[in-house]
Amino acid sequence: MKKYSCYWVLLLCLSVILNLLLASYVLIISEGNITISKSSDEQNELSWTRRAAKEAEDVASISCSGHGRAFLDGILSTTTNHLKGADEGIANPLLPSCECNSCYYGSDCSKFSPDCPADADSGDPIFLEPFWMKHAESSAILVSGWHRMAYKFGYEHGTFISKELERHLQELHAMVGNANSTGKFLVFGAGSTQLLNAAIYALSPEDPPSPTRIVGSIPFYPLYKSQTDFFNSKNFEWEGDTSMWKNTSLPSGYNSSMNFIEFVTSPNNPDGKLKDPVLLEGPSVRTIFDHAYYWPHYTAIPAPANEDLMIFTLSKLTGHASSRFGWALIKDQGVYERFINYMTLNSFGVSRDTQLRTLKLLKVVLGSGKELFDFGHRTTRTRWESLNKVISASRRFSLQKLIPQYSTYFQNFTAPSPAYAWVKCEREEDEDCYEALLRDGGIIGRSGSIFHAENRYVRLSLIKSQDDFDWLLQRMDALVSQEQVHEVNGAEIL
Amino acid sequence: MKKYSCYWVLLLCLSVILNLLLASYVLIISEGNITISKSSDEQNELSWTRRAAKEAEDVASISCSGHGRAFLDGILSTTTNHLKGADEGIANPLLPSCECNSCYYGSDCSKFSPDCPADADSGDPIFLEPFWMKHAESSAILVSGWHRMAYKFGYEHGTFISKELERHLQELHAMVGNANSTGKFLVFGAGSTQLLNAAIYALSPEDPPSPTRIVGSIPFYPLYKSQTDFFNSKNFEWEGDTSMWKNTSLPSGYNSSMNFIEFVTSPNNPDGKLKDPVLLEGPSVRTIFDHAYYWPHYTAIPAPANEDLMIFTLSKLTGHASSRFGWALIKDQGVYERFINYMTLNSFGVSRDTQLRTLKLLKVVLGSGKELFDFGHRTTRTRWESLNKVISASRRFSLQKLIPQYSTYFQNFTAPSPAYAWVKCEREEDEDCYEALLRDGGIIGRSGSIFHAENRYVRLSLIKSQDDFDWLLQRMDALVSQEQVHEVNGAEIL
Repeated sequence: MKKYSCYWVLLLCLSVILNLLLASYVLIISEGNITISKSSDEQNELSWTRRAAKEAEDVASISCSGHGRAFLDGILSTTTNHLKGADEGIANPLLPSCECNSCYYGSDCSKFSPDCPADADSGDPIFLEPFWMKHAESSAILVSGWHRMAYKFGYEHGTFISKELERHLQELHAMVGNANSTGKFLVFGAGSTQLLNAAIYALSPEDPPSPTRIVGSIPFYPLYKSQTDFFNSKNFEWEGDTSMWKNTSLPSGYNSSMNFIEFVTSPNNPDGKLKDPVLLEGPSVRTIFDHAYYWPHYTAIPAPANEDLMIFTLSKLTGHASSRFGWALIKDQGVYERFINYMTLNSFGVSRDTQLRTLKLLKVVLGSGKELFDFGHRTTRTRWESLNKVISASRRFSLQKLIPQYSTYFQNFTAPSPAYAWVKCEREEDEDCYEALLRDGGIIGRSGSIFHAENRYVRLSLIKSQDDFDWLLQRMDALVSQEQVHEVNGAEIL
Repeated sequence: MKKYSCYWVLLLCLSVILNLLLASYVLIISEGNITISKSSDEQNELSWTRRAAKEAEDVASISCSGHGRAFLDGILSTTTNHLKGADEGIANPLLPSCECNSCYYGSDCSKFSPDCPADADSGDPIFLEPFWMKHAESSAILVSGWHRMAYKFGYEHGTFISKELERHLQELHAMVGNANSTGKFLVFGAGSTQLLNAAIYALSPEDPPSPTRIVGSIPFYPLYKSQTDFFNSKNFEWEGDTSMWKNTSLPSGYNSSMNFIEFVTSPNNPDGKLKDPVLLEGPSVRTIFDHAYYWPHYTAIPAPANEDLMIFTLSKLTGHASSRFGWALIKDQGVYERFINYMTLNSFGVSRDTQLRTLKLLKVVLGSGKELFDFGHRTTRTRWESLNKVISASRRFSLQKLIPQYSTYFQNFTAPSPAYAWVKCEREEDEDCYEALLRDGGIIGRSGSIFHAENRYVRLSLIKSQDDFDWLLQRMDALVSQEQVHEVNGAEIL
């Protein structure tokens, strides 16, 4: 019996231990459960926005091998889409296709075409894309279907300009120190493109005795001329290079029946140099300062610009060329009113969707301290140095001379970091640098004549994607190496 | 000993029962837990989009008493914000303020100002807002910080037009049956505003012997003239009313040195009538068809329009006036190329942010069958009927005559549903209808002279918010009642 008793006690002990274990487990589980329910409540906060958020994350997850990107409004893929983390080859016909960087192809942009030329043509500021990928959370925006449908902002009569955006732009200029916006009027436009033309209308008299003469200094951004020519207004006409007017009739020849508007692009597109007006501003001479590139990415900021009419663009600040957003800082109220008149009659202001997105992007720029400018400047400087290194080994090509300058923004001397290389062919016979050398070397650039300069020059963009720049550098390196081989061979023959 | 043994067995039994209970509980909990984890996994799918989604929902939850709306880019409230469901009076200084409908005020738009005039001035198409509130989930869009930064769409060289959007617009016209877009070129613009001017440039010869004459039929949308005058091009000039040219030199006087462009607005703004060209199209006469209102909301659709150059706008289709999106359907390739040239030089195309949002909105329109048009038409028809009822009791005021017409879209005769009332003052002495009567009666409208018609006419907008319309109706009713009191008093005196 004693033996049996022991068994019962042993069994009871085991059962009690099991009781304790199970009870503890239940306790732990219950506590855990509270946590889970809590977090589930948090998750459930989202209702009507969930679908759009999920859709954006799905599209962002499409893998394009780091050589392309899928976008929400891309063409829907009829072939296979590759979601990150998903098994390769799962077809999802509802997702947009990858849009590959130049020279990459295939449904996931994984294939490279070695015969493809390096495209350094456009000023697409894709070098800033990694900044926005990094700040995914803070830069995302969810737009409701009913967001701000009316023509005008509700808080004030007669404006199609977001006051919040205006305030953020002023804060930005104060932070960067690249322009004095105090007491100036702000006008928004569809990129600097629309504002450049608006500026001419705003500055030129309506019924002048003769059309206002529009001028710029060679090499200049070609849009100034093509826009002026195309709109073919009775108010103004293109009159070419400033130097023509400086050396002949001006400044002594100024008279009120001869009005001028001078475009000053600083830093200059294509050569990245800081520029001053050639004609002296006065009652007959007005100046439009195109400061698209006057940001720490591209230049030292010696002092805040404080001219009467300055134009900036989001494109070269944050990299969002597609958004078509620019702004003008205007001193004179009359000029401002003519600007507003232009914007009303031309497009009834700038898309409020764009204004909303721009506001969000600026909040990230302002909120992240110097990060955008540090990143931007580091990228452009590094690219410039790499290209310089390659080209310094060449006798055939040279680059524009840029020197380190003191930047009030970085409070230091900063190395050059231009948006474009302004390549020159040094040998006398290479009159058409692009046609004779670069194009055959597999490089797409813009000939000097596009900027009304000699074709001995070519503009190469340094602000596109890393893929584009890497390939440009390789192609350029090959061209220079070829030249050295030729020289060695030549020496051997001699 | 036996007694003890029994105790052990009893205790053991109890312990085993407890074990069984605990084990079952653990099993149930675990299963539940799996469910919770699963749903938690689902919730956790969202990462970088969560913040933007939450922000949008928070702003949407701000209560503006049904008489206003808070927007993501609104001015931040320095006073109290009222979140739906939250305790009244909880201050949240980070949320945007309410933007109140006309005549409403206060931090939550709950106060009404009875002295405030009824504003029927602008063509703000806010009557469609409730449709978008209802379709909150499907119409929301989340835009990432890196969304499509480049100038051009990646899937094709040289275009800043979304192919997906183009495809959806064509699908929409086919569904509604209001335009034949087959084989036509599409160009996007910043609302119809930018496209109207682009159309003039695209249709007028570049170096004409004399400027192309731009004409329209009174009453006409005033932008046609003000735009033409402002841009002051050598290529064209405003020449007034079509009837001037019909009755004098045309059609017999047509000759190749005299080029005309006629604006035909159908349905017409301000009077809602379907219109045909007055001048006969030919080598010297081109026509721009402004079909902004050629949607089932505003008119019967007798047949698909199939003209050579037709302009449409999102503003009057979905109500998103703020987005500044319009499109042109163009038959001739040469004209199309000049349009593209204009769009490139004027603004380098339309904001891609706007194109993205427009695409989303069109997907909802197409996906919800006839719902937008049913809702739109019901609202405008009901408003027109209410106003008609009030004005039919008046001898002083009358409305334009519109008759039911067969609509191929509704496959039925549909009652009139214009966007605007074109009010006429019938008494001879009321030459200035707006100044003499409506303004004093607390109604803001647009005088006939703005549309180059007699000031005996006034345009009143019927497409603003319900608040605006209700107040207009009350004000108009008061005016008519006043008139009847005067008549009764007059009779008594007699």
